[in-house]
Amino acid sequence: MSDIKRVVLAYSGGLDTSVILKWLKETYQCEVVTFTADLGQGEELEPARAKAKLMGIKDEHIFIDDLREEFVKDYVFPMMRSNALYEGLYLLGTSIARPLIAKRQIEIAKMVGADAVSHGATGKGNDQVRFELGYYALAPDIKVIAPWREWDLTSRTKLIEYAEQHQIPVPKDKRGESPFSTDANLLHTSSEGKVLEDPWDEVPDYVYSRTDNPEDAPDTPEVITIDFERGDGVAINGEALSPAALLTKLNELGKRHGIGRLDLVENRYVGMKSRGMYETPGGTIYHLAHRGIEQITLDRGAAHLKDELAPRYAELIYNGFWFSPEREMLQAAIDHSQEKVTGTVRLKLYKGNVIVTGRKSPYTLYSEKVVTFEDDAGAYDQRDAAGFIKLNALRLRLLGRRDGR
Amino acid sequence: MSDIKRVVLAYSGGLDTSVILKWLKETYQCEVVTFTADLGQGEELEPARAKAKLMGIKDEHIFIDDLREEFVKDYVFPMMRSNALYEGLYLLGTSIARPLIAKRQIEIAKMVGADAVSHGATGKGNDQVRFELGYYALAPDIKVIAPWREWDLTSRTKLIEYAEQHQIPVPKDKRGESPFSTDANLLHTSSEGKVLEDPWDEVPDYVYSRTDNPEDAPDTPEVITIDFERGDGVAINGEALSPAALLTKLNELGKRHGIGRLDLVENRYVGMKSRGMYETPGGTIYHLAHRGIEQITLDRGAAHLKDELAPRYAELIYNGFWFSPEREMLQAAIDHSQEKVTGTVRLKLYKGNVIVTGRKSPYTLYSEKVVTFEDDAGAYDQRDAAGFIKLNALRLRLLGRRDGR
Amino acid sequence: MSDIKRVVLAYSGGLDTSVILKWLKETYQCEVVTFTADLGQGEELEPARAKAKLMGIKDEHIFIDDLREEFVKDYVFPMMRSNALYEGLYLLGTSIARPLIAKRQIEIAKMVGADAVSHGATGKGNDQVRFELGYYALAPDIKVIAPWREWDLTSRTKLIEYAEQHQIPVPKDKRGESPFSTDANLLHTSSEGKVLEDPWDEVPDYVYSRTDNPEDAPDTPEVITIDFERGDGVAINGEALSPAALLTKLNELGKRHGIGRLDLVENRYVGMKSRGMYETPGGTIYHLAHRGIEQITLDRGAAHLKDELAPRYAELIYNGFWFSPEREMLQAAIDHSQEKVTGTVRLKLYKGNVIVTGRKSPYTLYSEKVVTFEDDAGAYDQRDAAGFIKLNALRLRLLGRRDGR
Amino acid sequence: MSDIKRVVLAYSGGLDTSVILKWLKETYQCEVVTFTADLGQGEELEPARAKAKLMGIKDEHIFIDDLREEFVKDYVFPMMRSNALYEGLYLLGTSIARPLIAKRQIEIAKMVGADAVSHGATGKGNDQVRFELGYYALAPDIKVIAPWREWDLTSRTKLIEYAEQHQIPVPKDKRGESPFSTDANLLHTSSEGKVLEDPWDEVPDYVYSRTDNPEDAPDTPEVITIDFERGDGVAINGEALSPAALLTKLNELGKRHGIGRLDLVENRYVGMKSRGMYETPGGTIYHLAHRGIEQITLDRGAAHLKDELAPRYAELIYNGFWFSPEREMLQAAIDHSQEKVTGTVRLKLYKGNVIVTGRKSPYTLYSEKVVTFEDDAGAYDQRDAAGFIKLNALRLRLLGRRDGR
Repeated sequence: MSDIKRVVLAYSGGLDTSVILKWLKETYQCEVVTFTADLGQGEELEPARAKAKLMGIKDEHIFIDDLREEFVKDYVFPMMRSNALYEGLYLLGTSIARPLIAKRQIEIAKMVGADAVSHGATGKGNDQVRFELGYYALAPDIKVIAPWREWDLTSRTKLIEYAEQHQIPVPKDKRGESPFSTDANLLHTSSEGKVLEDPWDEVPDYVYSRTDNPEDAPDTPEVITIDFERGDGVAINGEALSPAALLTKLNELGKRHGIGRLDLVENRYVGMKSRGMYETPGGTIYHLAHRGIEQITLDRGAAHLKDELAPRYAELIYNGFWFSPEREMLQAAIDHSQEKVTGTVRLKLYKGNVIVTGRKSPYTLYSEKVVTFEDDAGAYDQRDAAGFIKLNALRLRLLGRRDGR
Repeated sequence: MSDIKRVVLAYSGGLDTSVILKWLKETYQCEVVTFTADLGQGEELEPARAKAKLMGIKDEHIFIDDLREEFVKDYVFPMMRSNALYEGLYLLGTSIARPLIAKRQIEIAKMVGADAVSHGATGKGNDQVRFELGYYALAPDIKVIAPWREWDLTSRTKLIEYAEQHQIPVPKDKRGESPFSTDANLLHTSSEGKVLEDPWDEVPDYVYSRTDNPEDAPDTPEVITIDFERGDGVAINGEALSPAALLTKLNELGKRHGIGRLDLVENRYVGMKSRGMYETPGGTIYHLAHRGIEQITLDRGAAHLKDELAPRYAELIYNGFWFSPEREMLQAAIDHSQEKVTGTVRLKLYKGNVIVTGRKSPYTLYSEKVVTFEDDAGAYDQRDAAGFIKLNALRLRLLGRRDGR
Repeated sequence: MSDIKRVVLAYSGGLDTSVILKWLKETYQCEVVTFTADLGQGEELEPARAKAKLMGIKDEHIFIDDLREEFVKDYVFPMMRSNALYEGLYLLGTSIARPLIAKRQIEIAKMVGADAVSHGATGKGNDQVRFELGYYALAPDIKVIAPWREWDLTSRTKLIEYAEQHQIPVPKDKRGESPFSTDANLLHTSSEGKVLEDPWDEVPDYVYSRTDNPEDAPDTPEVITIDFERGDGVAINGEALSPAALLTKLNELGKRHGIGRLDLVENRYVGMKSRGMYETPGGTIYHLAHRGIEQITLDRGAAHLKDELAPRYAELIYNGFWFSPEREMLQAAIDHSQEKVTGTVRLKLYKGNVIVTGRKSPYTLYSEKVVTFEDDAGAYDQRDAAGFIKLNALRLRLLGRRDGR
Repeated sequence: MSDIKRVVLAYSGGLDTSVILKWLKETYQCEVVTFTADLGQGEELEPARAKAKLMGIKDEHIFIDDLREEFVKDYVFPMMRSNALYEGLYLLGTSIARPLIAKRQIEIAKMVGADAVSHGATGKGNDQVRFELGYYALAPDIKVIAPWREWDLTSRTKLIEYAEQHQIPVPKDKRGESPFSTDANLLHTSSEGKVLEDPWDEVPDYVYSRTDNPEDAPDTPEVITIDFERGDGVAINGEALSPAALLTKLNELGKRHGIGRLDLVENRYVGMKSRGMYETPGGTIYHLAHRGIEQITLDRGAAHLKDELAPRYAELIYNGFWFSPEREMLQAAIDHSQEKVTGTVRLKLYKGNVIVTGRKSPYTLYSEKVVTFEDDAGAYDQRDAAGFIKLNALRLRLLGRRDGR
């Protein structure tokens, strides 16, 4: 057992991290500092303060931070610039929150002179990796305590017993087994485990919490516009909004119209497949709108390079390598491309559908004059195409002569 | 002017290719062989035979081929194995038909001893490239005639004048300008030009021909299953279907439920941006179903490599390089991954939505035993994660010590 | 401590693996089966048999296999088809031998009904990963014993004490510390550790064992030819040779001419940097010759795709993922390209230099007729270049008009 | 024939561009502005001024610029940061000079109010593409005149006749056919054509001009050091040097030691294969030194990403896309990685060999403490490797169980 003096715990105020809080004190005989972040998960945070106090944490060792603007501005938006989709479909809602939590936790550890950090992620998931790679990148010599990999509270029953033995209040609805497990922030809510474990079984209705069922959504489409500046969303329907406010607004819109549900079997970094259900209402709209504005403002060379880099970028974020040189290199390339990604996208929201119906930009590269079926007044000489094709074909002709298909 | 004796023309029977037919004869004083392919575009082909005869083409020089099964089996399905989306969104419906037409046209040219081939694609588009790269790859010394790049019939009026002067029947609805231009085959219908040229203007309702408006689609979802074997679809709702029959059935389903519309501004290979509207009803369902079955049958390493290769593969097909060594190399890699992509996907179709709700396979790699939140009986040792993270973090820690972020 | 009945040990006959042999018996109270492979490391193997017997291994449990032909034919040559260089420089000599050892070890384990395998690689290196990923891929439920990660013989002194206590003969030259550690096979010899640990210090002369110093090499160049068929070497100077014989011959040539030394600081998969010295005499010649023959027989599209895939392929082999779907997918793509990689390369060997001076092939794609500075009789129409450039420039012009650099 | 008023010609002062100068005046009845750049090609430039005057060019329309420092600092060094090698071997010496010439030519065109630019590259080569893509990117509406694609001076004889008819002095050694064609700048000299056209024939000795024959090089190695700062060379043997001075010094060293010869068959962008002989004495040393310093200062993630991007980056430069968004995006990624690429590399130069024998850096990531074979005092816990391997193997084990290889 390492010698730990003070540990900063990522503390939600819930039962599990309350047990961890107690267990850390008992097991390491150390001081615990709690850190609770508002990432838009939609829960009151003040109860976490009360609970922490109740469990003997000093006032100056309770940190509750509203990180919503930083989350969207410095994590969600940069990621969205890449159009990243993990395994072709997933908008990385959980993955992108972890580095920010890790970063703030390390900042606090440095402020309070802690020698360790701790989190409540299990030993089977990706989140432990994301937290810990963040910790180690930012504080290479920090000690990391991952109770779920260490303790013997391997069942719900044992956990609750431990809670009761240590005067930790157990809410009634936590006594029974929850039928699935969730994570939430301003970008998304994920659900997994238990009733979701058989990938052939349909996700039950009661699992969804962030989106209305498309079948119950309004029968009338809603048309909105999103304005972008340099690759980032800045306004909805012409109203300027901060990053977090913009995403919050899109979440409301997406929820109402049943947008952003995803039932996925994905590959975890730790080597297994898992089945998750994701709800990313605002993020889904934003993602498609961003593609829409890029369509007219991004050059083909830049666009195709971005598309080739995106799967790798998504994998890095999913695997927890936000604070890595290679993620930063890709970000530098991506950000370089966004200088003129400015303009307006019009979208129709309707029962689960996000339909881009128009885009315009002061920096459009779309040239009606060039592309037109009508007389183009010499903007494009069709005879150029003959030479273009001939030289592109040259190597294929040499091959054809050799191989005589 | 080259000396041409006999030319095989890709002939639709429509006004434009009828004018080309005549123009070829006049301009090159050569014999014309017509080739009309049924790729599922949904038009009668026999009228093309009648028209060709009327214009003096010999019976034995009129080729009308039903290529639908070959199209789906050897072009659409192999492409779908890759999950390719051009510029993140487009299912490549036009691009994938061109190499087959080129291939058959060259086969006919060899059969009839023609020294040239001709097509009706314009000098601004991608199709000329796709046709001609195919021609040259398969018959390096063939001569290619692209009338739209050569003649002076540069306006609709001139074209119709030419038709009238040469006794080519001009259908009434072709007299006026069509408000947009289309291409269709079993995979999709594309529309572009004229009323679609301003990318800020919404696509008018009358442009859609292959899909019902999601708003008019049934209020009740329809649940279907698709069975896959080695990466290809083989049955719908348990009923075995040939490739073309399967895609046809999915097209019906997709149409009814308003699935597969895409309004896109894309980058053409010839260097300009163009705005198109695509309807890919069955293909959209198929694409998502294929991703669904891969989720449980494909290893992570294979899946991620595929995702990284897909943008390049899509670009090759879009640009017309189907018959190129690099496309074939990528295909070899992709096909190698599909050996065990066998199983059943369940999907819900509802007003434009395709929702994968379940997937199962005799070859599933998903292990409930490993992933479970419950006791896994030793299938996975959570302590392994500590070492996994430690070694993945090592380089980041060395960096962190050096750079002290 | 797991319950092990019979373990197959990768046994070199040297002191370390002899200690492991004894330690396995003592620690696990299990039967040990020894497996010694001839991969061209240049050591007699029969002494390993004698030693194993002496240590009580049954005759039928001593396996000594000459794997040289399989090694070159099924591992070295396929890898060489890719032109893979790890981190731009390293020919992967150690990495490529490990999967074959693992494969054979597992075959023996299945034959003798063993429930475990063991190897002598340390816990800091890549080889443990390569061995064990191979074991697990081929026998997912095999138990793996890695003594260096388990025991407490953490110093040379302790190891020798253990040997002496257990009647294991300790060769005189093993009493002192070896000044560096080596690995050898038909492809290369690597040296690392101790005197090589400071990457600023020049590698001492006595470290080199497989190559003469270029400064001592003959003053007269030697010119040779290598014939390739379908991407693999088949003859030297017109003499047909088996894969292993061909590599052996190239090793002699390379040694004599001081070819194939590499002083490298590389990144290990386990997260640290290490400094190694590699001697790959024949492999270096072969690698450059293979590039030479590809230059005239491989199409540009295939060649460039190969170059883009090669770093990933190299990384997979280095990291131990030979038996993985993604390596096999890349191999399928690479192998598809080699069909016509047939012909002859002429090379000059001189004091460390390998100079390709000529290449010819019945399948050459090089066309003097097309490329010539002289009159090409219409093989290439220079005016085609104008259109080619114009269309390639189109997007850049549209950009330039917008951005006005 | 376009209406041209004033054209800026890339003018070497040699016979060919003198003929072009005259031909432009005659053909287009336009004013000609000459631009002659010193890129370190090793020729006097003042004679070009005299000749231009003689041919009637006004003083203020003769531009002679020493671009050597800009060339190395803003083109060669940024490229070298990428470690780019075209087709695995070629250091891109010609390709990297073209964008600078194009850029300066356009600057002059803007200064003098020219409406056109012209160059002396032929219609078969890559240089026309590189020049013209540069022109169009920087001045989208400039007119481009490529005489070799337009005129009928299709043989040497006709060219000389034309010269004689127009009082252009024809040097004696230009009367006969040159046995090959060259291009030179501070980075390299390339030779191609005529005697080099058969890729089986060895390059004759007289073709080499920038390097001594390794066989004639000194028998004694020379040891040098190169210092790097943020990815760029700054000193040789401790002596601080400007970029051009540093490359000049390396060229002297490389020449003396027979370093940097390359006989290559490469794939041109215009679709054919060509055979070239390249001499890149200083660049070859620099390239290997840069790899050397990166080995200890670059993180693995950054290094591997760079290696994967390098072939694409090389292709872009080779094809002439220096002034493209995608090249700039890759450059942004590459440059981001070079922040700490600072330190010293020691190299031994000997008869064609460049041998890195040591590297050191204040920012080294190499940790002897971690990697050591000796007791590492807990810097690395070998038991971590077990978990690392176990989780990396997990997916392969699941596969193995399914597929039972």
